[in-house]
Amino acid sequence: MIVDRAVRLAAVKGLDGISIGDLAKELNMSKSGLFSHFGSRENLETAIVERASALFFTHVLEPVEHDELQGIERLWTLCDNWLSFVEKQVLPGGYFFTGALFQRGGQRAPISRLITNTVRRWVETLIAAVEGAQRKDELSTDLDARQTTLELNGILLGAHCAYLLGYQKREGARATILRRLAGVATKKIPASAFDSLEQWRDYLEGRH
Amino acid sequence: MIVDRAVRLAAVKGLDGISIGDLAKELNMSKSGLFSHFGSRENLETAIVERASALFFTHVLEPVEHDELQGIERLWTLCDNWLSFVEKQVLPGGYFFTGALFQRGGQRAPISRLITNTVRRWVETLIAAVEGAQRKDELSTDLDARQTTLELNGILLGAHCAYLLGYQKREGARATILRRLAGVATKKIPASAFDSLEQWRDYLEGRH
Repeated sequence: MIVDRAVRLAAVKGLDGISIGDLAKELNMSKSGLFSHFGSRENLETAIVERASALFFTHVLEPVEHDELQGIERLWTLCDNWLSFVEKQVLPGGYFFTGALFQRGGQRAPISRLITNTVRRWVETLIAAVEGAQRKDELSTDLDARQTTLELNGILLGAHCAYLLGYQKREGARATILRRLAGVATKKIPASAFDSLEQWRDYLEGRH
Repeated sequence: MIVDRAVRLAAVKGLDGISIGDLAKELNMSKSGLFSHFGSRENLETAIVERASALFFTHVLEPVEHDELQGIERLWTLCDNWLSFVEKQVLPGGYFFTGALFQRGGQRAPISRLITNTVRRWVETLIAAVEGAQRKDELSTDLDARQTTLELNGILLGAHCAYLLGYQKREGARATILRRLAGVATKKIPASAFDSLEQWRDYLEGRH
């Protein structure tokens, strides 16, 4: 319960923005009582990042595993889930991991490594999905899987940035991802599937 | 001098991570002495974001104005300067504005608007540069300038993210930007100019 509240506070105010004092006030606990749970600020931050990572994995990665999605559908669904995770404000605020990565990523502290590891696991999952789609002959085998992944990740970050700035609606990001996939898909996927998001969703429905 | 120190501290620890107490200690001042300069925490945060914006504009936007760069060269140099700004750690830490935007962008506080305005000014400058390159017939007039800008911005964010994760060297980002420009340039730019970053820099040299 303490960690739940702390995660929500950290998502809005940043990891550095939470103080044990503020958190104790929110929870109606004494500072010393709260401190006795964690022993140190670093332990509290670790618990927050671990919980936030678990939320990210539950919402973004696990559904894809659970439904045993394959090929281009798996890749698409990962990107779609990423966008939904941000839209649904599962972690309120802008986007916890990107904010934290861009702020702490360059540092060597254990907490920075934890943040980096979560984002790296996301990128590795995406790389594996690109490779999986290549093995199913749905994406061109000419592609460099890592390079393509970094581009998709850039599209997601850029789209969320554009949304925060008021330049683009949420669906704009999905359309950009779809265009990028259209450009690298093989003929195994009917070209008409890429005509619109609606067509694309119909096409995915039809696969099952 | 106080603001200079505060900007560096905020770049590493985040806006929410600086306390007037820590800053006073760093500056060997009393908390009340420091507080009397700003009157409120919000004023201190405002001064920090304004200084950080000024640094960003000085390093990224002004050189392009000063050299009166035009067309595709202006667009390229803006992206190049953005990457250099991050590389040179003018603001130490990951990347101050992205971290702050992804964390605070969704909020309505005046400080969030200040952050959003700086990033928006960057995006507007990039859009104007794309349009300028279209007017000089160096980029295809079929392009949607805003969409192209958002994609370039996504490439920059994705590349910096990839760098922080250890997936990509700095020059990788420039190569991706160059590939994207190659895809949308008109025949007015010789195709060989896009063969490599070296060729590209030689080509730009030759324009003057």
